Parts: sequence; C-alpha cells; structure tokens
Amino acid sequence: MATTEEKAVSLELGSGGKRMRDFIARHIVPAFRNPFLDDLGDASHLPMGVAFTTDSYVVDPIFFPGGDIGTLAVNGTVNDLVVSGAVPRFLSLALILEEGLPWVDLSRILRSIKRAASRADVLVAGGDTKVVRRGQADKIYVNTSGVGLTVARPRTSLIRPGDRIILTGTLGEHSLAVMLAREEFGLESRVRSDCAPLTYLLPLWERGALWMRDITRGGLATILSELAEKIPHALLIEEEKIPLSLAVRGASELLGIDPLYLACEGRAVIVAPQKKAGAMLSEIRKSPLGRRAAIIGRVDDRIGRPGELLLATMTGGLRLLEPLTSELLPRIC
Amino acid sequence: MATTEEKAVSLELGSGGKRMRDFIARHIVPAFRNPFLDDLGDASHLPMGVAFTTDSYVVDPIFFPGGDIGTLAVNGTVNDLVVSGAVPRFLSLALILEEGLPWVDLSRILRSIKRAASRADVLVAGGDTKVVRRGQADKIYVNTSGVGLTVARPRTSLIRPGDRIILTGTLGEHSLAVMLAREEFGLESRVRSDCAPLTYLLPLWERGALWMRDITRGGLATILSELAEKIPHALLIEEEKIPLSLAVRGASELLGIDPLYLACEGRAVIVAPQKKAGAMLSEIRKSPLGRRAAIIGRVDDRIGRPGELLLATMTGGLRLLEPLTSELLPRIC
Repeated sequence: MATTEEKAVSLELGSGGKRMRDFIARHIVPAFRNPFLDDLGDASHLPMGVAFTTDSYVVDPIFFPGGDIGTLAVNGTVNDLVVSGAVPRFLSLALILEEGLPWVDLSRILRSIKRAASRADVLVAGGDTKVVRRGQADKIYVNTSGVGLTVARPRTSLIRPGDRIILTGTLGEHSLAVMLAREEFGLESRVRSDCAPLTYLLPLWERGALWMRDITRGGLATILSELAEKIPHALLIEEEKIPLSLAVRGASELLGIDPLYLACEGRAVIVAPQKKAGAMLSEIRKSPLGRRAAIIGRVDDRIGRPGELLLATMTGGLRLLEPLTSELLPRIC
Repeated sequence: MATTEEKAVSLELGSGGKRMRDFIARHIVPAFRNPFLDDLGDASHLPMGVAFTTDSYVVDPIFFPGGDIGTLAVNGTVNDLVVSGAVPRFLSLALILEEGLPWVDLSRILRSIKRAASRADVLVAGGDTKVVRRGQADKIYVNTSGVGLTVARPRTSLIRPGDRIILTGTLGEHSLAVMLAREEFGLESRVRSDCAPLTYLLPLWERGALWMRDITRGGLATILSELAEKIPHALLIEEEKIPLSLAVRGASELLGIDPLYLACEGRAVIVAPQKKAGAMLSEIRKSPLGRRAAIIGRVDDRIGRPGELLLATMTGGLRLLEPLTSELLPRIC
C-alpha cells in the first residue's frame, strides 16, 4: 500500500494536493469502484434526481475572522452541491466533541450553523453527537453531508478552445485568515475568511455554464490543473487578471506563499462558453459575493499542450502550474 | 446553556442515555427546528422519497472480535435506514485520520468497509479524507451518511394494547466485545460483536411492522423507554424471554453490568400487530442473523401506566425500567 519508508499516514496527505489525490485514486476509489464514485466530483448524482456529498471539517482554530467551524461546515457542503449542479436542500450534522469543550463555544458554533443554514436555504435534517476523551480530538470536528436536487450536470466534454475561465472573487482570504488566527506567524492582519454560500451561482447552470468548482484545498492552480488533465486542451490564465485583495497580496509576499495555491471557502471558478461569458460575468457581479469576479483566462490550444495549465505572468513570461504536491498547512478546513 | 458546575462537554453526554437525549432535545433540535428533525428518528424522510441519516464512529479499539470501525460504520448507518423504513442504497464515507496511523490498519479498514457495503448491497457514492496531527484524534474516526429509498413510515400512532414486541437476537455482544478488547478488565472472553446489516428485516415493513429500532447506545431498555414515552400505553417485557448468550450472561454478571442497557450493532426490536407477530417471528428466524429472535413482550395497559416500560423479572417481580442516564463507556460505536 506504500513504500517501505512510508508505513503510516502523514500530514501531507490531508493537504488536498497531488499526494492526497493519488492516495484516494490509488487506494480508496479502487476499493469501492462504481459509476457514482468514478468521476470524483464534489458531489455524486444519484439515480433519484438527488445529489449527495460529504465533508468533515477539522479547522484549527475553530473560530477565525469571518467565520468558524460551523459556518465552514455548512458553506463547504452547500458549495460542493452548487458546483456539482444541484440545489442544496438538506444537511446532516455529525459532531465529534472533545471532553472539556466549553458549552459557550459549542453554543456559538450551533448558532453559526443555524445562521449559515438559513442563509443558504438548507434544512438540517438529522444529526449525531459523539464525545471522546481529552486529547482524542481537538475541541470539535464537524461532518456535514448534503442532499440536493440535481438541476444540471457538468459537461467537461463540451469544453472547447476559446471558452472562458471566470473567477468569482479574490483568492486566499480563507486560508490566510485561518493561518494568521493561529498566531504562529506573529502577523497582525485584517484578512477575513471569504467563507460564504455559492448558491447565488445556481442560475449560471441554466445560462450554460460548462463546469464549476469551489476553490478549496489546493487552491485555484491545483483545481484548474486537475481540470486540464481531464480535457484534451490547455488552460491559460493571466496573472494580472486574477483579483487579489491588498491584505492577501501583502501577507502572501511576507510569508512567501503563492495565493494561487491558497484555499477559499466562498469562491468558485467557472468555465463558460465564449459567447456567454460576458453575460455570466455580469450576472455574478450582481451579487455582493461576486463583485470582484473576473474573466481570468481561457481554454487555449495555441500556446500550451493538452493537459497543461499555464500562467501568463505580470512580467510577460509563461509559467507551467503544477498541482500542489504537498503542503504543511493542515486543518485549513 | 448549562448549570454553573457544568461549563463544558462531559463524557456522559456521549453515552446515548438520557443526558445526551436531553442535550440534543434542548440545545440542538431547537436551533434547527424543522419538520424533518422533529421526530428524532434514526433517519429523516425527505420529500423526494429519499431517507437520509448520518453517524460518526469513534469506537475504541478500532479492531475488535467480530468487526472493526469499518464494518461498524457501514452497518450502523445501513441499520438506521432499515429501521426507519428505507432500503439502503448509498453511503458517503468521511475519514478523519490521525498522523501516524499505520497503512496496514487503514487498508484493513477500507477492505472491511468494502466487504460490509457489498454484503448490505449499498454503494459508496462519495467521500472525504482529513488528516490531523498526532494526539488530535485517536487513530481514525469514520463518518458515514446514508441515502435510502423510503418504503414505509413507522406508525407509532397505530400501536395498540396487545401488540407484540419482537427482539431479533441476543443482547449485548457488541458492547462486551469492544469493552473486553480494551483489556482494561483483564477478562478473557469469546464474545464477538453482533455487528451486521439488518437488511433482512426490510420485508417486515410490508408484513405490517408498526415500529422498528436498532439496539445501539443505551440498549434495549433505553430504546423501549423512549418508545413508551411517545405512546399512550405501557410496555411490558419478560426477562425470561430475552435471549442472552452464555458468554454475555457470564461477563455481565462478573462485571455487574445489565445487558438490557448494552449496545448491539446487529439487533433490532420491533412492534408488530398481535395477529401478525407469529408470522413475522418465523420470517425473522429464517435468517441466520435472526435465529434467536423471540417475542419478548407486549403493549399492555393492564399493569403499567401510560409511558412506562416494565420488566417482569425471572423471580416474578415487576421492575420499572428507566432510560440510561449516563454511562462511562464512551466510544462503544
């Protein structure tokens, strides 16, 4: 199951990068091979017209500027349904609580879950609570699974050269807000998590969106690399068009981090047919959550080779972007 | 949210007893009040003809005689669907792995999940993997959510005096197998967990079963007490009719534990109309999993008061059974 040097699960596995994807593709998917699991999308479309998804949330710290583990657990799962082409309807809520978790913290998280569920228009339809001893969890872990109504299916096979790549907002706020809240870096910052529901993007499926993904672990570069690998075309994005907040730009430079690899929790990247991209961008910008949306690139076979993701840099260069391989930033979500 | 002496989550909360039920009823349900959550059943019936349930599994140790955390995670969720009146179809699988978990253990658990899913005829439709640092989990926690097709709805309101209570097999093997595997008790035993899918009970819904529950945390006494509280009748069960294995009888006596409060993971209790109970019992006994099924009691207003669960003891006495209040046996599932 692994080389002799690696006989145990390591932290990098949880980064959302290439090692994790390889692990899942090599060890988990083959164990359960079936048509619902094969495309490894964010949610599975089941035969009853229902989409189904799950995520566990282990974010550290549990409270951070702009949200907490509760808002994250609702929005993360809601967003997986939206980008898979489903209207989110129901969530399950499973809590693993560490003995000693203060009631005030649990209470605050439950209130956040309630608020976030109401904002995303989903109902909590069931739940489970387990308690483990001190030192057997870190305060609280939350799992939400989501059930939605399928309204569209991503159509990767229809992606053609000239199609546009739309990013719905600035990158990296969530990762940086969580990292800085850990106080390991001794940096003061005003960065707030972008954690939010993407339900405002649902009408784009009717308007002809071909593919959507929420930008979580691995960041924009990893997610678009994975798309590029699945299609017989290259993707080109332009650095100068990628919206970044001043705070993220500053903190990333200080810390030597590339925002293209940072996780968000309220941003998506969309592939739109060339002729429809302008109208879709206007639609996105109507939402306060999409104000800074931009067309950041296109499907382009003139420069890259099939399967490649290229970045046209500010300085006029061309850089091949690889998926994140491993990252020592665990527990960002 | 709690008295001044209790400002934090305590272990008893996770026992499945009265404290936990009170906590959920007081703090969690009101936060999310909606028609799907109100009956607090094992699974929720959603409008699309679909039933939905979730459970996290934190059993310690992760391997025990008769199963492991993987078999448990599949059967536990499958059984919640069955007893709610749904044919289990799809599971999600979310893993929280502790850094350092040996690959061989993970691999063995994944194989168990595969085998159990195949035995229960469900597909793993999606998943999630998170890794946390050493000391932030205990080896592995597994969440499964389940989606099934609704075929029946429990009809508690139709329960009448004379209806029979059927137990599908011996009590307590799962709890004791897990407890003894912890080696805290220094007891050798041949008890193996009863962990198994209850899908063989699905035909009973068509045959007129009024109500079903799998016997998990809190045990038979807690689960029937909760039923008694919901109906305007009393329930009477007879000690001499309750099937117990010699091993469980012996270990329970040695440890001073009442098997009526022990969790199983492959047993159910069913309320059947008086005239249909005999035929249903024969049906159950046809399955190797139901060989020791028995009619253990009835709905009876002649002895108890509405809402009471009474035990007619071997010695001819009558004992009022209360739901489990708290128990220091965490992580049994």
